[in-house]
Amino acid sequence: MAGVDSELEKGLHAIVDSFYRYAKGPPGAKELDQIAFQKLLNNELSHQLTDVQSTEAGKNLLRKLDTDRNQHISFDEYWELITCVCQAIRRYHYSH
Amino acid sequence: MAGVDSELEKGLHAIVDSFYRYAKGPPGAKELDQIAFQKLLNNELSHQLTDVQSTEAGKNLLRKLDTDRNQHISFDEYWELITCVCQAIRRYHYSH
Repeated sequence: MAGVDSELEKGLHAIVDSFYRYAKGPPGAKELDQIAFQKLLNNELSHQLTDVQSTEAGKNLLRKLDTDRNQHISFDEYWELITCVCQAIRRYHYSH
Repeated sequence: MAGVDSELEKGLHAIVDSFYRYAKGPPGAKELDQIAFQKLLNNELSHQLTDVQSTEAGKNLLRKLDTDRNQHISFDEYWELITCVCQAIRRYHYSH
């Protein structure tokens, strides 16, 4: 059991870390504002989400994810995006 | 945009891949039986989920995740486990 984290374990940490590297706010209530969200999209999802790399497209995606309408993305709202991306990977790479 | 996938993108692929490396069945309907699920827990989550490394504990976890009661774990049921692990990482590493 000792030894290096698996690719899966590294991936799980990378997902949570990707949010908190850009999120701001008090402990336990950190969120992504529109600028931070766009930076995350451009820096971390530039291959997977090519169609949201422009500011306009990023704003539209933020509006879709922002279910509590506070113009910020919480971790739970971010998780919806993560779930959608994984479903797309699944459909594209594993449905045959 | 060209270039290497980000750690986040690698992580997303690693999560989906971790399921399909162990799942069996027809295209679009692959699932984990109890043996495959236990192998995944032991090989891929041995650091993150230390308390489900025994067969007995793995069977209990499978029962909890197996919402359609077919003794197998579908991708959607597996995704519940992924969500729980990420919430635990979040509470443990990012709540202060």
